[in-house]
Amino acid sequence: MSIRINGDRLWGSLMEMARIGATKKGGVNRIAFTDLDQQARDLFAGWGRAAGCDVRVDRFGNMFIRRPGRNPDAPVVMAGSHLDSQPTGGKFDGVYGVLAGLEAIRCLNDQGIETEAPIEVVNWTNEEGCIFRPMIGSAVWTGLLPLGDALAMREDREGWTIQEGLERIGYAGDQGLMGAYPVACYLEAHIEQGPVLEDAGEMVGVVDATQGQLWYDLALTGREAHAGPTPMAVRRDALMGMSRIALEIDRIARANEPGCGTVGRVDVFPNSPNTIPGRVAFSGDLRHPEDAVLRAMDQEFRVSARRIAEEMGLTLELSERADIPSMPFNQPLADAVQKAAIATGKPWRRMYTGAGHDACNVARFLPTAMIFIPCRDGISHNEAEHAQPEQVAVGAQVLAETLLAAANGEIDFGVAP
Amino acid sequence: MSIRINGDRLWGSLMEMARIGATKKGGVNRIAFTDLDQQARDLFAGWGRAAGCDVRVDRFGNMFIRRPGRNPDAPVVMAGSHLDSQPTGGKFDGVYGVLAGLEAIRCLNDQGIETEAPIEVVNWTNEEGCIFRPMIGSAVWTGLLPLGDALAMREDREGWTIQEGLERIGYAGDQGLMGAYPVACYLEAHIEQGPVLEDAGEMVGVVDATQGQLWYDLALTGREAHAGPTPMAVRRDALMGMSRIALEIDRIARANEPGCGTVGRVDVFPNSPNTIPGRVAFSGDLRHPEDAVLRAMDQEFRVSARRIAEEMGLTLELSERADIPSMPFNQPLADAVQKAAIATGKPWRRMYTGAGHDACNVARFLPTAMIFIPCRDGISHNEAEHAQPEQVAVGAQVLAETLLAAANGEIDFGVAP
Repeated sequence: MSIRINGDRLWGSLMEMARIGATKKGGVNRIAFTDLDQQARDLFAGWGRAAGCDVRVDRFGNMFIRRPGRNPDAPVVMAGSHLDSQPTGGKFDGVYGVLAGLEAIRCLNDQGIETEAPIEVVNWTNEEGCIFRPMIGSAVWTGLLPLGDALAMREDREGWTIQEGLERIGYAGDQGLMGAYPVACYLEAHIEQGPVLEDAGEMVGVVDATQGQLWYDLALTGREAHAGPTPMAVRRDALMGMSRIALEIDRIARANEPGCGTVGRVDVFPNSPNTIPGRVAFSGDLRHPEDAVLRAMDQEFRVSARRIAEEMGLTLELSERADIPSMPFNQPLADAVQKAAIATGKPWRRMYTGAGHDACNVARFLPTAMIFIPCRDGISHNEAEHAQPEQVAVGAQVLAETLLAAANGEIDFGVAP
Repeated sequence: MSIRINGDRLWGSLMEMARIGATKKGGVNRIAFTDLDQQARDLFAGWGRAAGCDVRVDRFGNMFIRRPGRNPDAPVVMAGSHLDSQPTGGKFDGVYGVLAGLEAIRCLNDQGIETEAPIEVVNWTNEEGCIFRPMIGSAVWTGLLPLGDALAMREDREGWTIQEGLERIGYAGDQGLMGAYPVACYLEAHIEQGPVLEDAGEMVGVVDATQGQLWYDLALTGREAHAGPTPMAVRRDALMGMSRIALEIDRIARANEPGCGTVGRVDVFPNSPNTIPGRVAFSGDLRHPEDAVLRAMDQEFRVSARRIAEEMGLTLELSERADIPSMPFNQPLADAVQKAAIATGKPWRRMYTGAGHDACNVARFLPTAMIFIPCRDGISHNEAEHAQPEQVAVGAQVLAETLLAAANGEIDFGVAP
């Protein structure tokens, strides 16, 4: 059995959704818990009902639209992503995975295809974490974050809680979280948010793993002093220390391909041209798909950072903000994605995800895989984010084929459901 | 003829002045053109009158208290500095040079010593440049900055001009600028604002030159991208570029002792831990007492910065914010300072000033020298700024002796007055 998605319809839905929170520069500003989030949810729910689906909302506002299967008790086959965006986000990040899932359901309807298992498309609450933290909806659904704690989280400026935020937009649901009914697997289609597919001229990424991530909070304290009368030999210059440590992060990442290393945030005190910086606080980030390599990178980095601080007479504070181990996705499910990619006749590659996604939370509990499509210049979290209609269609085709195979029990996940 | 200053009286005056704008941490907040600036000026004027001096204010608010000489037409011997402070400044920066000059006049009075030439102590307007730019009073007095332009400068937030600021505090005077009457020489006593004297256990710096300064405004533009899915090989990371350029500044300075190199200000965009910085704007600063060496450092730096940007695929913007050549002070006047330092029996050294001072403006037109005293840990522009009473007294003793020698025509400056 095969299915053919309607690329024009999917593109049209993406563009229609992009009108909600549209920005002048062609992007989207649709932060979770806002009126615009509510409008996007309402539009998605309406489309779901129009496609004959039940719309259910769990206690954390995660939305599930369900197309019934022949066997209502069969574990659900799930796909999805998120409709919220960064304040200057693009039209595809998140939305694509939700609407590609919807398109699969629409096509099954069009082509009169019944499946054994129900298929659900999910819109996770607050993936972007513009307020609170990222990927919070899937964290609550899977139990990684206790529901009560999450609902009680308070917005900084205005002081409302997530519970109140959900009630305000009418999405404080009553459905249970993961475990309320059996789920067979989870698929998430997404723009790559990196340049790998585009640079290689490939159309589909078969995403079968996450990379491990170590996030550090660092600070160097030296001695603030006048830039003129302070001889080099007696300086304790926190900015020069930060520079050396940043370059170590870069060097260690490059020496451990395909590892990544980044210093994204740097705050200099007092940040005045005529004063030697007395303190620099900064972030550090090391990633690698193999945990053993990442541990070795971590050790090398810590030794280097300590040595640099000592050599320069600086006090180093180093703490871990996050330690996210790498994780393989479900290989049989990724194999099924690969099979569907091959069937499109387009170039593809097996790859891991460098960014975090709701799939990374779900993969800890359920067979999970992702499908990447290229994005122009690797740019996302940006109003200039763009994907070509053909790329959008091919990825959705791969998603639909895989959902169909999964919902007909054609994939042996190799684990108990 | 010799003179002996009263260290206790000088210390008492410093502490009394420090009550105006005193901060909780033991420092001073006395920004130019504020009510506190006015109070400090009033106190100084009162002390001047009490010492039998005329108090004159020029059209830019620079204050001169004059002790007459036997010959009213003899070129004036001038000493001074500034009473304004940084927002979190100390009790000594600037104030010391003004009150050490006042103490010299008081001692001449106490000891009944007449001089051939008049002696003036000046309080320059707005040395610190917390609003507008630094050393503006001496720049206007010497004609480096046109009076009309300076009076018309407008404060950013409230929109008042310097003319209005001076009128508000009652110090829009009517006296002429440099050239209105002959001035023989200028002496400025000041805390070192660096650690050289303290580290060497010395009490007096005989300051006979400035170092040259090059200030750069730099910016690197690369490509903002997600820290996770962007392979190292395709990154154009502005922060790593800044780090390499900062370390080049450091390396070049150390290779050209006693040169200095500083990156004091760094602004990263978007400054988010999960995003590779797309743009970093930063300051650069190279200094050396020999201009030929500074030019060579400048060339080496420009070549390095361009090469680094090119290697990393970054766009470099580099402009000069300031190019201040090094300048010898008047050597016969510095020799006189040295003679007075030797007479104290305390350890001293000949040195240049690493920081800018009003003396650097005046030195372009008049025989000038400076006298440094140590400051604790080399710290200034800081509420923790401190000098010992003995250090304060010894520096003032050197100033008084030199003023006396100059005012009695004992110094041949080697230039036409």
